[in-house]
Amino acid sequence: PHVPYAPPRYPVASMLERSQDFYSLMNQRRSVRFISPEPVPREVIDNVIRTAGTAPSGAHTEPWTFVVVSDPDTKHEIRTIVEDEEEVNYRQRMGNKWVKDLARIRTTWVKEYLDVAPYLLLIFKQTYGIASGGKRKTHYYNEISVSVSCGILLAALQNVGLVTVTSTPLNCGPRLRVLLQRPANEKLLMLLPVGYPSHDATVPDLKRKPVEDIMVHI
Amino acid sequence: PHVPYAPPRYPVASMLERSQDFYSLMNQRRSVRFISPEPVPREVIDNVIRTAGTAPSGAHTEPWTFVVVSDPDTKHEIRTIVEDEEEVNYRQRMGNKWVKDLARIRTTWVKEYLDVAPYLLLIFKQTYGIASGGKRKTHYYNEISVSVSCGILLAALQNVGLVTVTSTPLNCGPRLRVLLQRPANEKLLMLLPVGYPSHDATVPDLKRKPVEDIMVHI
Ligand SMILES: Cc1cc2nc3c(=O)[nH]c(=O)nc-3n(C[C@H](O)[C@H](O)[C@H](O)COP(=O)(O)O)c2cc1C
Ligand SMILES: Cc1cc2nc3c(=O)[nH]c(=O)nc-3n(C[C@H](O)[C@H](O)[C@H](O)COP(=O)(O)O)c2cc1C
Repeated sequence: PHVPYAPPRYPVASMLERSQDFYSLMNQRRSVRFISPEPVPREVIDNVIRTAGTAPSGAHTEPWTFVVVSDPDTKHEIRTIVEDEEEVNYRQRMGNKWVKDLARIRTTWVKEYLDVAPYLLLIFKQTYGIASGGKRKTHYYNEISVSVSCGILLAALQNVGLVTVTSTPLNCGPRLRVLLQRPANEKLLMLLPVGYPSHDATVPDLKRKPVEDIMVHI
Repeated sequence: PHVPYAPPRYPVASMLERSQDFYSLMNQRRSVRFISPEPVPREVIDNVIRTAGTAPSGAHTEPWTFVVVSDPDTKHEIRTIVEDEEEVNYRQRMGNKWVKDLARIRTTWVKEYLDVAPYLLLIFKQTYGIASGGKRKTHYYNEISVSVSCGILLAALQNVGLVTVTSTPLNCGPRLRVLLQRPANEKLLMLLPVGYPSHDATVPDLKRKPVEDIMVHI
Protein backbone atom coordinates (compact mmCIF):
# COMPACT_ATOMS: atom_id res chain seq x y z
CA PRO A 1 0.00 0.00 0.00
CA HIS A 2 0.94 3.62 -0.48
CA VAL A 3 1.04 6.15 2.36
CA PRO A 4 0.99 9.98 2.30
CA TYR A 5 4.38 11.67 2.23
CA ALA A 6 4.81 15.26 3.42
CA PRO A 7 8.42 16.08 4.33
CA PRO A 8 9.36 19.42 5.96
CA ARG A 9 9.28 22.36 3.60
CA TYR A 10 11.65 25.29 4.02
CA PRO A 11 11.08 28.91 2.96
CA VAL A 12 13.19 29.88 -0.06
CA ALA A 13 15.70 31.94 1.95
CA SER A 14 16.27 29.03 4.27
CA MET A 15 16.65 26.57 1.36
CA LEU A 16 19.31 28.79 -0.11
CA GLU A 17 21.15 29.07 3.16
CA ARG A 18 20.93 25.34 3.82
CA SER A 19 22.20 24.56 0.31
CA GLN A 20 25.17 26.88 0.81
CA ASP A 21 26.00 25.55 4.28
CA PHE A 22 25.90 21.95 3.14
CA TYR A 23 28.08 22.79 0.15
CA SER A 24 30.66 24.47 2.46
CA LEU A 25 30.67 21.47 4.76
CA MET A 26 31.07 18.93 1.96
CA ASN A 27 33.59 21.07 0.10
CA GLN A 28 35.91 20.72 3.11
CA ARG A 29 35.98 16.94 2.61
CA ARG A 30 39.29 15.53 1.47
CA SER A 31 40.63 12.01 1.18
CA VAL A 32 42.97 11.70 4.14
CA ARG A 33 45.71 9.08 4.23
CA PHE A 34 47.10 10.06 7.66
CA ILE A 35 44.70 8.91 10.33
CA SER A 36 45.06 9.33 14.08
CA PRO A 37 44.96 6.26 16.35
CA GLU A 38 42.71 8.13 18.82
CA PRO A 39 39.54 6.21 19.64
CA VAL A 40 36.23 7.23 18.08
CA PRO A 41 32.91 6.48 19.82
CA ARG A 42 31.32 3.38 18.35
CA GLU A 43 27.86 4.90 18.50
CA VAL A 44 28.93 7.58 16.04
CA ILE A 45 30.06 4.88 13.61
CA ASP A 46 26.80 3.01 14.09
CA ASN A 47 24.83 6.17 13.28
CA VAL A 48 26.95 6.76 10.18
CA ILE A 49 26.11 3.26 8.97
CA ARG A 50 22.44 3.68 9.82
CA THR A 51 22.56 6.79 7.65
CA ALA A 52 24.18 4.89 4.76
CA GLY A 53 21.35 2.36 5.08
CA THR A 54 18.78 5.03 4.16
CA ALA A 55 20.06 5.09 0.57
CA PRO A 56 17.77 4.23 -2.32
CA SER A 57 18.39 0.89 -4.01
CA GLY A 58 17.17 -0.76 -7.20
CA ALA A 59 13.78 -2.41 -6.40
CA HIS A 60 14.49 -1.74 -2.67
CA THR A 61 16.93 -4.64 -2.43
CA GLU A 62 19.20 -2.82 0.09
CA PRO A 63 22.13 -4.89 -1.27
CA TRP A 64 24.81 -3.76 1.23
CA THR A 65 26.77 -5.12 4.16
CA PHE A 66 28.99 -2.85 6.25
CA VAL A 67 31.74 -4.70 8.10
CA VAL A 68 33.30 -2.55 10.84
CA VAL A 69 36.70 -3.81 11.95
CA SER A 70 38.26 -2.50 15.15
CA ASP A 71 40.08 -5.67 16.25
CA PRO A 72 43.83 -4.95 15.88
CA ASP A 73 44.77 -8.42 14.64
CA THR A 74 42.10 -8.40 11.97
CA LYS A 75 43.13 -4.90 10.92
CA HIS A 76 46.69 -6.13 10.58
CA GLU A 77 45.65 -9.11 8.50
CA ILE A 78 43.70 -6.77 6.25
CA ARG A 79 46.79 -4.59 5.89
CA THR A 80 48.91 -7.58 4.95
CA ILE A 81 46.47 -8.70 2.27
CA VAL A 82 46.02 -5.21 0.83
CA GLU A 83 49.74 -4.35 0.74
CA ASP A 84 50.52 -7.72 -0.78
CA GLU A 85 48.07 -7.24 -3.63
CA GLU A 86 48.74 -3.53 -4.03
CA GLU A 87 52.44 -4.12 -4.50
CA VAL A 88 51.61 -6.45 -7.40
CA ASN A 89 49.06 -3.90 -8.67
CA TYR A 90 51.61 -1.09 -8.74
CA ARG A 91 54.45 -3.20 -10.12
CA GLN A 92 52.55 -5.25 -12.68
CA ARG A 93 48.79 -4.96 -12.99
CA MET A 94 48.10 -1.26 -13.30
CA GLY A 95 50.58 -0.37 -16.07
CA ASN A 96 52.86 2.65 -16.25
CA LYS A 97 50.13 5.09 -17.16
CA TRP A 98 47.99 4.43 -14.12
CA VAL A 99 50.98 4.57 -11.80
CA LYS A 100 51.97 7.89 -13.40
CA ASP A 101 48.43 9.26 -12.98
CA LEU A 102 48.67 8.47 -9.29
CA ALA A 103 52.14 10.00 -8.82
CA ARG A 104 50.81 13.48 -8.02
CA ILE A 105 48.59 12.03 -5.30
CA ARG A 106 51.70 10.21 -3.99
CA THR A 107 49.89 7.01 -3.12
CA THR A 108 51.96 3.85 -2.75
CA TRP A 109 51.24 0.33 -1.72
CA VAL A 110 52.32 0.99 1.87
CA LYS A 111 49.17 1.70 3.86
CA GLU A 112 50.02 2.33 7.49
CA TYR A 113 46.56 3.70 8.09
CA LEU A 114 45.17 0.17 7.87
CA ASP A 115 46.81 -0.61 11.23
CA VAL A 116 46.41 2.82 12.74
CA ALA A 117 42.83 3.88 12.00
CA PRO A 118 40.49 2.94 14.85
CA TYR A 119 37.99 1.51 12.35
CA LEU A 120 38.17 -0.06 8.94
CA LEU A 121 34.84 -0.14 7.10
CA LEU A 122 34.63 -2.83 4.46
CA ILE A 123 31.61 -2.35 2.29
CA PHE A 124 30.27 -5.35 0.40
CA LYS A 125 27.73 -5.36 -2.40
CA GLN A 126 25.36 -8.31 -2.41
CA THR A 127 25.44 -9.35 -6.04
CA TYR A 128 22.33 -11.46 -5.51
CA GLY A 129 20.02 -12.27 -2.60
CA ILE A 130 18.69 -15.55 -1.31
CA ALA A 131 14.89 -15.83 -1.26
CA SER A 132 13.17 -17.93 1.39
CA GLY A 133 13.38 -21.37 -0.19
CA GLY A 134 16.98 -20.80 -1.26
CA LYS A 135 16.40 -19.42 -4.77
CA ARG A 136 18.61 -16.61 -6.00
CA LYS A 137 17.04 -13.16 -6.10
CA THR A 138 18.47 -10.76 -8.65
CA HIS A 139 19.86 -7.52 -7.22
CA TYR A 140 19.37 -5.01 -10.01
CA TYR A 141 22.06 -2.32 -10.18
CA ASN A 142 23.64 -3.50 -6.92
CA GLU A 143 26.99 -1.80 -7.50
CA ILE A 144 25.37 1.54 -8.29
CA SER A 145 23.08 1.31 -5.25
CA VAL A 146 25.94 0.48 -2.88
CA SER A 147 28.08 3.27 -4.33
CA VAL A 148 25.23 5.74 -3.80
CA SER A 149 25.01 4.50 -0.23
CA CYS A 150 28.77 5.09 0.16
CA GLY A 151 28.27 8.67 -1.00
CA ILE A 152 25.74 9.19 1.77
CA LEU A 153 28.13 7.49 4.21
CA LEU A 154 30.93 9.88 3.22
CA ALA A 155 28.59 12.82 3.82
CA ALA A 156 27.72 11.41 7.25
CA LEU A 157 31.41 11.04 8.18
CA GLN A 158 32.18 14.56 7.04
CA ASN A 159 29.24 15.85 9.06
CA VAL A 160 30.81 14.55 12.30
CA GLY A 161 34.40 15.62 11.54
CA LEU A 162 35.78 12.17 10.76
CA VAL A 163 37.95 11.43 7.75
CA THR A 164 38.59 8.55 5.40
CA VAL A 165 40.09 7.75 2.05
CA THR A 166 37.78 6.10 -0.45
CA SER A 167 39.43 3.01 -1.87
CA THR A 168 38.41 0.10 -4.09
CA PRO A 169 41.22 -2.37 -3.40
CA LEU A 170 41.99 -4.04 -6.70
CA ASN A 171 42.14 -7.84 -6.51
CA CYS A 172 41.88 -7.95 -2.68
CA GLY A 173 38.19 -8.78 -2.60
CA PRO A 174 38.31 -12.57 -2.56
CA ARG A 175 40.91 -12.84 0.23
CA LEU A 176 39.21 -10.18 2.36
CA ARG A 177 35.84 -11.82 1.89
CA VAL A 178 37.22 -15.10 3.22
CA LEU A 179 39.05 -13.38 6.10
CA LEU A 180 35.85 -11.65 7.18
CA GLN A 181 33.74 -14.75 6.58
CA ARG A 182 31.29 -13.09 4.24
CA PRO A 183 29.07 -15.30 2.08
CA ALA A 184 29.73 -15.96 -1.60
CA ASN A 185 27.08 -13.54 -2.86
CA GLU A 186 28.96 -10.61 -1.31
CA LYS A 187 31.77 -8.85 -3.17
CA LEU A 188 33.99 -6.19 -1.66
CA LEU A 189 33.27 -2.77 -3.14
CA MET A 190 35.11 -0.34 -0.86
CA LEU A 191 37.52 -0.21 2.03
CA LEU A 192 37.40 2.94 4.14
CA PRO A 193 39.77 3.55 7.07
CA VAL A 194 37.95 5.87 9.47
CA GLY A 195 39.13 8.13 12.27
CA TYR A 196 40.23 11.65 13.13
CA PRO A 197 42.94 13.05 10.89
CA SER A 198 46.40 12.84 12.49
CA HIS A 199 47.67 16.15 13.84
CA ASP A 200 50.20 16.56 11.04
CA ALA A 201 47.92 15.25 8.27
CA THR A 202 48.54 16.63 4.79
CA VAL A 203 46.60 16.23 1.57
CA PRO A 204 47.59 16.70 -2.08
CA ASP A 205 47.05 20.29 -3.16
CA LEU A 206 44.32 19.43 -5.66
CA LYS A 207 41.72 21.81 -7.06
CA ARG A 208 38.18 20.86 -8.02
CA LYS A 209 36.62 21.73 -11.36
CA PRO A 210 34.60 24.96 -11.31
CA VAL A 211 30.84 24.36 -11.47
CA GLU A 212 30.66 25.64 -15.09
CA ASP A 213 32.78 22.68 -16.13
CA ILE A 214 30.48 20.05 -14.64
CA MET A 215 27.02 21.59 -15.12
CA VAL A 216 24.99 22.32 -18.25
CA HIS A 217 21.60 24.11 -18.15
CA ILE A 218 19.03 23.50 -20.89
CA PRO B 1 52.74 19.31 -3.34
CA HIS B 2 50.98 18.37 -0.15
CA VAL B 3 49.36 20.91 2.17
CA PRO B 4 48.34 20.65 5.84
CA TYR B 5 44.76 19.52 6.50
CA ALA B 6 43.01 20.32 9.74
CA PRO B 7 39.22 20.13 9.48
CA PRO B 8 36.94 21.22 12.34
CA ARG B 9 36.87 18.83 15.26
CA TYR B 10 33.74 18.41 17.36
CA PRO B 11 33.55 17.35 21.02
CA VAL B 12 32.20 13.81 21.44
CA ALA B 13 28.75 14.90 22.63
CA SER B 14 28.39 17.14 19.61
CA MET B 15 29.58 14.37 17.23
CA LEU B 16 26.93 12.08 18.64
CA GLU B 17 24.23 14.68 18.27
CA ARG B 18 25.31 15.57 14.74
CA SER B 19 25.37 11.90 13.74
CA GLN B 20 21.85 11.41 15.09
CA ASP B 21 20.47 14.56 13.48
CA PHE B 22 21.91 13.70 10.10
CA TYR B 23 20.53 10.19 10.36
CA SER B 24 17.05 11.55 11.14
CA LEU B 25 17.23 13.92 8.21
CA MET B 26 18.38 11.27 5.75
CA ASN B 27 16.01 8.66 7.12
CA GLN B 28 13.12 10.88 6.02
CA ARG B 29 14.28 10.63 2.40
CA ARG B 30 11.97 8.66 0.12
CA SER B 31 11.83 8.19 -3.61
CA VAL B 32 8.92 10.37 -4.68
CA ARG B 33 7.15 9.83 -7.97
CA PHE B 34 4.62 12.67 -7.54
CA ILE B 35 6.36 15.97 -8.03
CA SER B 36 4.84 19.43 -7.84
CA PRO B 37 5.14 21.81 -10.81
CA GLU B 38 5.95 24.71 -8.44
CA PRO B 39 9.16 26.52 -9.40
CA VAL B 40 12.35 25.90 -7.41
CA PRO B 41 15.09 28.55 -7.23
CA ARG B 42 17.85 27.75 -9.69
CA GLU B 43 20.55 28.81 -7.24
CA VAL B 44 19.52 25.98 -4.91
CA ILE B 45 19.95 23.49 -7.77
CA ASP B 46 23.33 24.99 -8.63
CA ASN B 47 24.45 24.59 -5.01
CA VAL B 48 23.24 21.00 -4.96
CA ILE B 49 25.35 20.28 -8.04
CA ARG B 50 28.35 22.12 -6.60
CA THR B 51 27.98 19.82 -3.60
CA ALA B 52 27.87 16.71 -5.80
CA GLY B 53 31.08 17.96 -7.42
CA THR B 54 32.94 17.66 -4.09
CA ALA B 55 32.79 13.85 -4.28
CA PRO B 56 35.96 11.79 -4.37
CA SER B 57 36.82 10.17 -7.69
CA GLY B 58 39.34 7.57 -8.82
CA ALA B 59 42.67 9.40 -9.44
CA HIS B 60 40.75 12.74 -9.13
CA THR B 61 39.26 12.42 -12.60
CA GLU B 62 35.95 14.09 -11.60
CA PRO B 63 34.25 12.09 -14.37
CA TRP B 64 30.78 13.64 -14.14
CA THR B 65 28.50 15.96 -16.10
CA PHE B 66 25.23 17.19 -14.63
CA VAL B 67 22.70 18.29 -17.24
CA VAL B 68 19.88 20.35 -15.73
CA VAL B 69 16.82 20.51 -17.94
CA SER B 70 14.09 23.05 -17.23
CA ASP B 71 13.02 23.76 -20.84
CA PRO B 72 9.48 22.31 -21.20
CA ASP B 73 9.97 21.05 -24.77
CA THR B 74 13.18 19.24 -23.90
CA LYS B 75 11.54 17.74 -20.81
CA HIS B 76 8.73 16.48 -23.01
CA GLU B 77 11.13 14.95 -25.52
CA ILE B 78 12.89 13.22 -22.65
CA ARG B 79 9.56 11.88 -21.43
CA THR B 80 8.73 10.55 -24.88
CA ILE B 81 12.07 8.74 -25.17
CA VAL B 82 11.90 7.31 -21.65
CA GLU B 83 8.28 6.11 -21.91
CA ASP B 84 8.97 4.63 -25.32
CA GLU B 85 11.89 2.56 -24.05
CA GLU B 86 10.32 1.78 -20.69
CA GLU B 87 7.24 0.31 -22.30
CA VAL B 88 9.50 -2.10 -24.21
CA ASN B 89 11.49 -2.72 -21.00
CA TYR B 90 8.38 -3.67 -19.05
CA ARG B 91 6.78 -5.68 -21.87
CA GLN B 92 9.85 -7.45 -23.20
CA ARG B 93 13.29 -6.72 -21.82
CA MET B 94 12.94 -7.04 -18.07
CA GLY B 95 11.25 -10.43 -17.85
CA ASN B 96 8.35 -11.42 -15.62
CA LYS B 97 10.42 -11.64 -12.46
CA TRP B 98 11.69 -8.10 -12.55
CA VAL B 99 8.24 -6.74 -13.34
CA LYS B 100 6.85 -8.75 -10.41
CA ASP B 101 9.57 -7.41 -8.10
CA LEU B 102 8.51 -3.90 -9.02
CA ALA B 103 4.79 -4.53 -8.56
CA ARG B 104 4.78 -3.60 -4.88
CA ILE B 105 6.44 -0.27 -5.71
CA ARG B 106 3.74 0.18 -8.39
CA THR B 107 6.04 1.72 -10.95
CA THR B 108 4.93 1.66 -14.57
CA TRP B 109 6.29 3.07 -17.80
CA VAL B 110 4.07 6.15 -17.57
CA LYS B 111 6.16 8.92 -16.04
CA GLU B 112 4.19 12.10 -15.80
CA TYR B 113 6.79 13.60 -13.48
CA LEU B 114 9.12 13.98 -16.45
CA ASP B 115 6.86 16.76 -17.78
CA VAL B 116 5.83 18.13 -14.42
CA ALA B 117 9.01 18.38 -12.35
CA PRO B 118 10.60 21.83 -12.65
CA TYR B 119 14.00 20.23 -13.24
CA LEU B 120 15.26 17.00 -14.70
CA LEU B 121 18.86 16.20 -13.75
CA LEU B 122 20.57 13.87 -16.19
CA ILE B 123 23.84 12.63 -14.79
CA PHE B 124 26.46 11.38 -17.24
CA LYS B 125 29.59 9.42 -16.44
CA GLN B 126 32.61 10.26 -18.57
CA THR B 127 33.88 6.83 -19.49
CA TYR B 128 37.17 8.35 -20.61
CA GLY B 129 38.66 11.84 -20.80
CA ILE B 130 40.45 13.62 -23.61
CA ALA B 131 43.98 14.80 -22.75
CA SER B 132 45.39 17.95 -24.36
CA GLY B 133 46.65 16.55 -27.65
CA GLY B 134 43.51 14.46 -28.12
CA LYS B 135 44.64 11.20 -26.52
CA ARG B 136 42.16 9.22 -24.44
CA LYS B 137 42.67 9.39 -20.67
CA THR B 138 41.39 6.40 -18.71
CA HIS B 139 38.78 7.18 -16.07
CA TYR B 140 39.33 4.52 -13.44
CA TYR B 141 36.16 3.45 -11.66
CA ASN B 142 34.11 6.17 -13.34
CA GLU B 143 30.73 4.55 -12.66
CA ILE B 144 31.49 4.08 -8.96
CA SER B 145 32.77 7.65 -8.62
CA VAL B 146 29.71 9.14 -10.30
CA SER B 147 27.38 6.98 -8.21
CA VAL B 148 29.13 8.16 -5.03
CA SER B 149 28.66 11.72 -6.27
CA CYS B 150 24.94 10.98 -6.80
CA GLY B 151 24.72 9.81 -3.18
CA ILE B 152 26.08 13.16 -2.03
CA LEU B 153 23.68 14.89 -4.43
CA LEU B 154 20.71 13.03 -2.93
CA ALA B 155 21.84 14.09 0.55
CA ALA B 156 22.06 17.70 -0.64
CA LEU B 157 18.53 17.56 -2.10
CA GLN B 158 17.14 16.05 1.08
CA ASN B 159 18.88 18.75 3.11
CA VAL B 160 16.88 21.49 1.31
CA GLY B 161 13.52 19.68 1.33
CA LEU B 162 13.45 18.74 -2.34
CA VAL B 163 12.55 15.27 -3.59
CA THR B 164 13.46 13.01 -6.46
CA VAL B 165 13.28 9.42 -7.56
CA THR B 166 16.59 7.79 -8.42
CA SER B 167 16.36 6.12 -11.80
CA THR B 168 18.76 4.47 -14.22
CA PRO B 169 16.70 4.46 -17.41
CA LEU B 170 17.41 1.17 -19.15
CA ASN B 171 18.30 1.55 -22.85
CA CYS B 172 17.47 5.27 -22.98
CA GLY B 173 21.06 6.45 -22.70
CA PRO B 174 22.01 6.68 -26.37
CA ARG B 175 18.89 8.62 -27.45
CA LEU B 176 19.08 10.98 -24.49
CA ARG B 177 22.79 11.59 -25.07
CA VAL B 178 22.06 12.64 -28.64
CA LEU B 179 19.06 14.77 -27.63
CA LEU B 180 21.19 16.63 -25.06
CA GLN B 181 24.18 16.85 -27.44
CA ARG B 182 26.63 15.21 -25.04
CA PRO B 183 29.90 13.90 -26.45
CA ALA B 184 30.56 10.22 -27.19
CA ASN B 185 32.66 9.65 -24.04
CA GLU B 186 29.64 10.42 -21.83
CA LYS B 187 27.12 7.74 -20.91
CA LEU B 188 23.88 8.39 -19.04
CA LEU B 189 24.01 6.99 -15.51
CA MET B 190 20.96 8.51 -13.80
CA LEU B 191 17.89 10.57 -14.44
CA LEU B 192 16.50 12.46 -11.45
CA PRO B 193 13.32 14.56 -11.64
CA VAL B 194 13.64 17.24 -8.95
CA GLY B 195 11.11 19.46 -7.22
CA TYR B 196 8.85 19.75 -4.19
CA PRO B 197 6.62 16.77 -3.56
CA SER B 198 3.09 17.32 -4.80
CA HIS B 199 0.58 18.07 -2.06
CA ASP B 200 -1.04 14.65 -2.33
CA ALA B 201 2.21 12.72 -2.82
CA THR B 202 2.24 9.14 -1.58
CA VAL B 203 5.08 6.62 -1.31
CA PRO B 204 5.08 2.83 -1.05
CA ASP B 205 4.86 1.74 2.57
CA LEU B 206 8.35 0.17 2.61
CA LYS B 207 10.45 -0.57 5.68
CA ARG B 208 14.23 -0.41 5.82
CA LYS B 209 16.36 -3.22 7.20
CA PRO B 210 17.28 -2.78 10.86
CA VAL B 211 20.93 -1.83 11.39
CA GLU B 212 21.78 -5.29 12.77
CA ASP B 213 20.97 -6.73 9.35
CA ILE B 214 23.38 -4.50 7.46
CA MET B 215 26.25 -4.06 9.95
CA VAL B 216 28.81 -6.53 11.33
CA HIS B 217 31.35 -5.58 14.03
CA ILE B 218 34.68 -7.42 14.27
C1 LIG C 1 20.15 2.32 -9.05
C2 LIG C 1 18.70 2.59 -8.77
C3 LIG C 1 17.77 2.50 -9.81
C4 LIG C 1 16.41 2.77 -9.58
N1 LIG C 1 15.54 2.74 -10.63
C5 LIG C 1 14.25 3.12 -10.45
C6 LIG C 1 13.37 3.23 -11.54
O1 LIG C 1 13.75 3.00 -12.70
N2 LIG C 1 12.08 3.63 -11.33
C7 LIG C 1 11.64 3.94 -10.07
O2 LIG C 1 10.48 4.30 -9.90
N3 LIG C 1 12.46 3.83 -8.97
C8 LIG C 1 13.77 3.45 -9.15
N4 LIG C 1 14.63 3.42 -8.07
C9 LIG C 1 14.15 3.78 -6.72
C10 LIG C 1 13.94 2.55 -5.85
O3 LIG C 1 12.79 1.84 -6.26
C11 LIG C 1 13.81 2.99 -4.37
O4 LIG C 1 15.01 3.59 -3.97
C12 LIG C 1 13.48 1.84 -3.44
O5 LIG C 1 12.21 1.34 -3.74
C13 LIG C 1 13.53 2.27 -1.97
O6 LIG C 1 12.64 3.31 -1.71
P1 LIG C 1 13.13 4.69 -1.09
O7 LIG C 1 14.12 5.31 -2.07
O8 LIG C 1 11.88 5.51 -0.95
O9 LIG C 1 13.81 4.42 0.22
C14 LIG C 1 16.00 3.13 -8.27
C15 LIG C 1 16.92 3.22 -7.24
C16 LIG C 1 18.27 2.97 -7.48
C17 LIG C 1 19.28 3.13 -6.38
C1 LIG D 1 36.24 4.76 -6.66
C2 LIG D 1 37.41 5.42 -6.00
C3 LIG D 1 38.58 4.71 -5.80
C4 LIG D 1 39.67 5.29 -5.14
N1 LIG D 1 40.80 4.54 -4.91
C5 LIG D 1 41.81 5.06 -4.16
C6 LIG D 1 42.89 4.25 -3.78
O1 LIG D 1 42.96 3.05 -4.09
N2 LIG D 1 43.89 4.81 -3.03
C7 LIG D 1 43.85 6.12 -2.65
O2 LIG D 1 44.76 6.58 -1.97
N3 LIG D 1 42.81 6.93 -3.01
C8 LIG D 1 41.79 6.42 -3.74
N4 LIG D 1 40.69 7.21 -4.06
C9 LIG D 1 40.63 8.62 -3.62
C10 LIG D 1 40.94 9.59 -4.76
O3 LIG D 1 42.30 9.56 -5.10
C11 LIG D 1 40.51 11.01 -4.33
O4 LIG D 1 39.13 11.03 -4.13
C12 LIG D 1 40.87 12.07 -5.38
O5 LIG D 1 42.26 12.18 -5.50
C13 LIG D 1 40.26 13.44 -5.03
O6 LIG D 1 40.70 13.88 -3.77
P1 LIG D 1 39.68 14.26 -2.61
O7 LIG D 1 38.90 13.01 -2.28
O8 LIG D 1 40.57 14.71 -1.48
O9 LIG D 1 38.77 15.34 -3.12
C14 LIG D 1 39.61 6.65 -4.72
C15 LIG D 1 38.41 7.37 -4.93
C16 LIG D 1 37.32 6.77 -5.55
C17 LIG D 1 36.04 7.53 -5.72
